[in-house]
Amino acid sequence: MKPTRLDDMNCSVARTADLIGEWWTPVILRDLMFGVTRFDHFQERLGIARNTLTDRLGRLAEEGIVERVAYQEHPPRYDYRLTEKGADLWLVLTAMREWGDRWEAPDGPPLRATHRACGNDVTLHLECPECGELTTRREVRMVDGPGHGGKVLTSLRR
Amino acid sequence: MKPTRLDDMNCSVARTADLIGEWWTPVILRDLMFGVTRFDHFQERLGIARNTLTDRLGRLAEEGIVERVAYQEHPPRYDYRLTEKGADLWLVLTAMREWGDRWEAPDGPPLRATHRACGNDVTLHLECPECGELTTRREVRMVDGPGHGGKVLTSLRR
Repeated sequence: MKPTRLDDMNCSVARTADLIGEWWTPVILRDLMFGVTRFDHFQERLGIARNTLTDRLGRLAEEGIVERVAYQEHPPRYDYRLTEKGADLWLVLTAMREWGDRWEAPDGPPLRATHRACGNDVTLHLECPECGELTTRREVRMVDGPGHGGKVLTSLRR
Repeated sequence: MKPTRLDDMNCSVARTADLIGEWWTPVILRDLMFGVTRFDHFQERLGIARNTLTDRLGRLAEEGIVERVAYQEHPPRYDYRLTEKGADLWLVLTAMREWGDRWEAPDGPPLRATHRACGNDVTLHLECPECGELTTRREVRMVDGPGHGGKVLTSLRR
């Protein structure tokens, strides 16, 4: 069941979930990052129903995450490409992939993310500009931000 | 519409989406990380229907992301706590929050993540152990991993 508006929560996790949390959307974003641009190509790779794919790509276009670029006029045909906002989701997908690799990949990671320049595996780190890497969630304290507006559900642990 | 099995794709993004991509689940995980443990407390904070909350917490327990810890016997009452697997989702939520802060927070971030020890803002970075930080997706090449098994949909750009 879809909540009325996750968007109303003034929470950036909720707002992101509202945009990318629909079924299929994360794998469509993954394929966009892999360079897939054509409707039929998504459909063939994912085995997704055409109306569902139309719906998901339409939502992503509405939200400014993908843009349609015409590659043929008669009949009109489009490439789907990530906008800057869409391409910026790569760290979200990276974090999802890393967790899935650790906890849901019994045969080992299906894919490895490597540095193109040197071939080493690359991984996400949470960093403090002063102190370097943080390795546990307990090292992080959530505090009111500029967009708090008095209606954020904040942490119980301060 | 829910696909038959995102899980069958041999993709760690798909597997993670399959577990946390349901409506409400990301904000329930957020509240678990904030230290919320009681059913009624989630319900009150989120304004979520009780049957939906039961369903989501049940799925998270089945998947080993939360555990139920009895705090009362008559009638039985439970605390919900993140397991190690569940707590490890913090970087996924962090990546979602950071993206939402950048693109969906017109008044600025509702919350800031700070280093408890020194108060500076902390942020995610993708790092190569040899070369340091990577700042663009183009620096990353996805290659076959040990769990590839010949059935992964890989990148078009090698």
